[in-house]
Amino acid sequence: MELLVYLAGEIHSPWREALKEMAKQYELPLVFKGPMEDHDRSDNIGEEIIGKQPNAILKDEAASAINNLRTQIWLNKADVVIALFGENYKQWNTAMDASTAIALGKPLILIRPEKLHHPLKELSNKAQVTVETPEQALKALSYIFES
Amino acid sequence: MELLVYLAGEIHSPWREALKEMAKQYELPLVFKGPMEDHDRSDNIGEEIIGKQPNAILKDEAASAINNLRTQIWLNKADVVIALFGENYKQWNTAMDASTAIALGKPLILIRPEKLHHPLKELSNKAQVTVETPEQALKALSYIFES
Amino acid sequence: MELLVYLAGEIHSPWREALKEMAKQYELPLVFKGPMEDHDRSDNIGEEIIGKQPNAILKDEAASAINNLRTQIWLNKADVVIALFGENYKQWNTAMDASTAIALGKPLILIRPEKLHHPLKELSNKAQVTVETPEQALKALSYIFES
Amino acid sequence: MELLVYLAGEIHSPWREALKEMAKQYELPLVFKGPMEDHDRSDNIGEEIIGKQPNAILKDEAASAINNLRTQIWLNKADVVIALFGENYKQWNTAMDASTAIALGKPLILIRPEKLHHPLKELSNKAQVTVETPEQALKALSYIFES
Amino acid sequence: MELLVYLAGEIHSPWREALKEMAKQYELPLVFKGPMEDHDRSDNIGEEIIGKQPNAILKDEAASAINNLRTQIWLNKADVVIALFGENYKQWNTAMDASTAIALGKPLILIRPEKLHHPLKELSNKAQVTVETPEQALKALSYIFES
Amino acid sequence: MELLVYLAGEIHSPWREALKEMAKQYELPLVFKGPMEDHDRSDNIGEEIIGKQPNAILKDEAASAINNLRTQIWLNKADVVIALFGENYKQWNTAMDASTAIALGKPLILIRPEKLHHPLKELSNKAQVTVETPEQALKALSYIFES
Amino acid sequence: MELLVYLAGEIHSPWREALKEMAKQYELPLVFKGPMEDHDRSDNIGEEIIGKQPNAILKDEAASAINNLRTQIWLNKADVVIALFGENYKQWNTAMDASTAIALGKPLILIRPEKLHHPLKELSNKAQVTVETPEQALKALSYIFES
Amino acid sequence: MELLVYLAGEIHSPWREALKEMAKQYELPLVFKGPMEDHDRSDNIGEEIIGKQPNAILKDEAASAINNLRTQIWLNKADVVIALFGENYKQWNTAMDASTAIALGKPLILIRPEKLHHPLKELSNKAQVTVETPEQALKALSYIFES
Repeated sequence: MELLVYLAGEIHSPWREALKEMAKQYELPLVFKGPMEDHDRSDNIGEEIIGKQPNAILKDEAASAINNLRTQIWLNKADVVIALFGENYKQWNTAMDASTAIALGKPLILIRPEKLHHPLKELSNKAQVTVETPEQALKALSYIFES
Repeated sequence: MELLVYLAGEIHSPWREALKEMAKQYELPLVFKGPMEDHDRSDNIGEEIIGKQPNAILKDEAASAINNLRTQIWLNKADVVIALFGENYKQWNTAMDASTAIALGKPLILIRPEKLHHPLKELSNKAQVTVETPEQALKALSYIFES
Repeated sequence: MELLVYLAGEIHSPWREALKEMAKQYELPLVFKGPMEDHDRSDNIGEEIIGKQPNAILKDEAASAINNLRTQIWLNKADVVIALFGENYKQWNTAMDASTAIALGKPLILIRPEKLHHPLKELSNKAQVTVETPEQALKALSYIFES
Repeated sequence: MELLVYLAGEIHSPWREALKEMAKQYELPLVFKGPMEDHDRSDNIGEEIIGKQPNAILKDEAASAINNLRTQIWLNKADVVIALFGENYKQWNTAMDASTAIALGKPLILIRPEKLHHPLKELSNKAQVTVETPEQALKALSYIFES
Repeated sequence: MELLVYLAGEIHSPWREALKEMAKQYELPLVFKGPMEDHDRSDNIGEEIIGKQPNAILKDEAASAINNLRTQIWLNKADVVIALFGENYKQWNTAMDASTAIALGKPLILIRPEKLHHPLKELSNKAQVTVETPEQALKALSYIFES
Repeated sequence: MELLVYLAGEIHSPWREALKEMAKQYELPLVFKGPMEDHDRSDNIGEEIIGKQPNAILKDEAASAINNLRTQIWLNKADVVIALFGENYKQWNTAMDASTAIALGKPLILIRPEKLHHPLKELSNKAQVTVETPEQALKALSYIFES
Repeated sequence: MELLVYLAGEIHSPWREALKEMAKQYELPLVFKGPMEDHDRSDNIGEEIIGKQPNAILKDEAASAINNLRTQIWLNKADVVIALFGENYKQWNTAMDASTAIALGKPLILIRPEKLHHPLKELSNKAQVTVETPEQALKALSYIFES
Repeated sequence: MELLVYLAGEIHSPWREALKEMAKQYELPLVFKGPMEDHDRSDNIGEEIIGKQPNAILKDEAASAINNLRTQIWLNKADVVIALFGENYKQWNTAMDASTAIALGKPLILIRPEKLHHPLKELSNKAQVTVETPEQALKALSYIFES
């Protein structure tokens, strides 16, 4: 019985690769999906598909439509969501994906450095589990499969 | 067509093993999931993942977050839930899992010794089926597959 | 804008009256509903309506049907649920009402003596707020209305 | 026919007062609810209700539980949500409230300075309306009532 | 706090009037809605609105569309449904309304003569309460309001 | 018990006024809501609120966001929806509102000239009632209130 | 892509076998589930599992709990429901299963002899398709797979 | 992980074939479903199954019931919906399918010639993505699978 795990959040560090590697070592039946991790491609995908836009806001609007399409399709199919907040960027789309998962009745594992606890306190309170590292998140998932 | 059966409840008697054994004998296409049955591991899993906690309540809080993660993931995928109440312990998490299943539209088979009927009367009234032994629960599931 | 508060749980202490009294003092626009608090009437209501039953289990079954009717009607209309666990009785119907509220998307305030934390840890983890006294629960509700 | 408007977001500028004032001038049948706007009270409410906590994270956890109780109760009753992002703070709880509203099928009006468009592009794409000032948001609501 | 009670079922006996009369005597805050009780008007309403139909089946189809419109509007608003089965007629629309209520999460009180128990056993099993007389159904509702 | 009726569809004929007039004559407890009926205002509302747009498509996009805000708020609160198709215009927003109502579990009364039956056959099949005139639609609603 | 078809209704004629045979001939990827077709076994299953009951009503109650368990599990997984009404028996459980399917958003194909149209008119109005023979129902399903 | 794509809309041009061909070239794990593309068969399917109807409207009604059965089954299973509007025909069933998808929480990709933007502005505003060609729609889906 495979579970689909949606990996929301930061795309500027290789945490997803580390997490997938651990899952392989633990031999867990997990399939991982997530956002586009190539920042430039994520910003440009709207113009690439519908063509050059007149200004930056419209370029953003075009890109976000495609990015949200991707997110909605995989979030709808996800069994559990992991969201990682890093120390940079606004990361409001991460907060959006994490909150959407909760509202859809899917459990959220929140990964954040302890120093971000205060601004994340309301989201942490709604998450099913809050940890500090991807390895801890994976240990939680591994526990699901122990008999 | 496999069905996923979530086995909520008592973890201090080997009723799950007996039930799985019967399912094998009957050759029923059932997959069983349930809570962590190792009581100590269940109590310690929070500290194991996020580290030593300052007191017993916080240790409990950390553990219950991981245990509920496990329950939520499998309950969301379950086709039917069996909940067994024994004669010891408070078993409020069993009542919680059983009630959550009903509220999610998943049928509940309640197993309890007859002597517990009075305190379980409201939950029994909401269960789809109430029986006294795991064997009776399995017979009910077996009937589902008869043509 | 009145809120409907369902008061689940223990019926052998006057905590509901104390809570309603405080609400009146704070002038909060709260309407309270809850289970039948007369234990005998709650146990006998089935037979009173459908007549003498052949044995204790059937008497219980008849009573629980009417008690659950009451609970379902008011829980469906509730904006928030308060569930109080005391130190006696099995209180599985309290756990059932509390869990049903959560599954229906209604926030739960759990009141329990600290000593019950371990057996209630999974339910406490799912509750929106866990406190030890009705007065604390009311303070939380009062905060909702502060501007 | 009164509508309940939940005002999520920034609590360090008087935008809610301005908006309520305009609603009064337009004579719109709107009732406004929102988070606690006194920052200190919002941070301290957990300890005030359940007592002094051993560290800052637990103080935050206690406070966020009560703040989320408030949000969940009013969001559940809201007909429309307005979320304002300012230029300071992480505002992840604002993103959380805004996303929860959308996932619950309630329309979102997003207010943000144009310079924040890029980091808010995915949330803006999901909002029903994106504007730059509270006055624009109120004009949109006023339009709802024109015959 | 008024409750809306939908009275499904038999239209050839004056049970609704009796029930409303009792509710008035008990001073219960109940509003009653139900199907058209004038059998001829119920059969003819389709043709009355959209005109003469070419045959009996189309006349039936036109009438049932309007009757179901009425049922859907009031069932959607109902807090509880009472369905009475009599000894005559097929009463499949009664079974339909009763089952729809259950599927919508609204409690059902089933009234039927004991002799109909066998053919109604599956529906009775899903009903929250099964009784034999309107008076018993009203007593159950009256119990809801007792403090 | 007032019902909220959403009047979707054609805004170039005075059918809504006629329907409201009839409702007043019949003394029906109906509240009517619907889209902006001033075509120019409906087309310009986006620019009026967020300012001049660079091209016609963006002007349309801005306007439709506000128009959909209005529709979503009232549709969410509606008990029943009436959608009238006329002989001109594409009317795809009418089909959208009508279909959304059905998907939300709200009954639809479809008004269309008989000659439009073929292109509307799938929508008519999903509507609860299909008629040709507003007067027929109102008669159907009037029937809801007959005792 | 296999579809699960639940076959509700009459168990005293071999219509299910005929329908399955046709599906095989048409090579349709359909899996069929339905109620227990052995009438005696269906009536006795409760006592067989939980033991001899004191009277006929309790025997019925025990049996219906198990039969509804079977129905709920397969209905929850069904993609489409076919319900056949014959000319004998009350068939209220058939009406219940058919109505539950509709309320769950699953399309219903109703099979009934034309002479039963009048008492089935409200259910027929809610069904997606009404036909007179199993062969017609299968042709409708076959059409789903045509490219 | 295969995704099911429902292709709503125009059946008089070979856009579905082109789209399937591209999907094959890109080696995307997509399964496509959609309406009957043979216009005559779509119009005649009702009479073919339930027999000659007395007039054109009843022939339409019979056909639309079967066509909607097909649509409902596949839309319920779809992960994403693509709807293409052409320059001819009323296409109200296309608007219906597109809107139903959105209301069910499934993302919509709208394909329309730019010149249709004005009459489609409200639907476009609700779509997740709006493009002008099937190739653009497929590029958006292809992006979903990029790692």
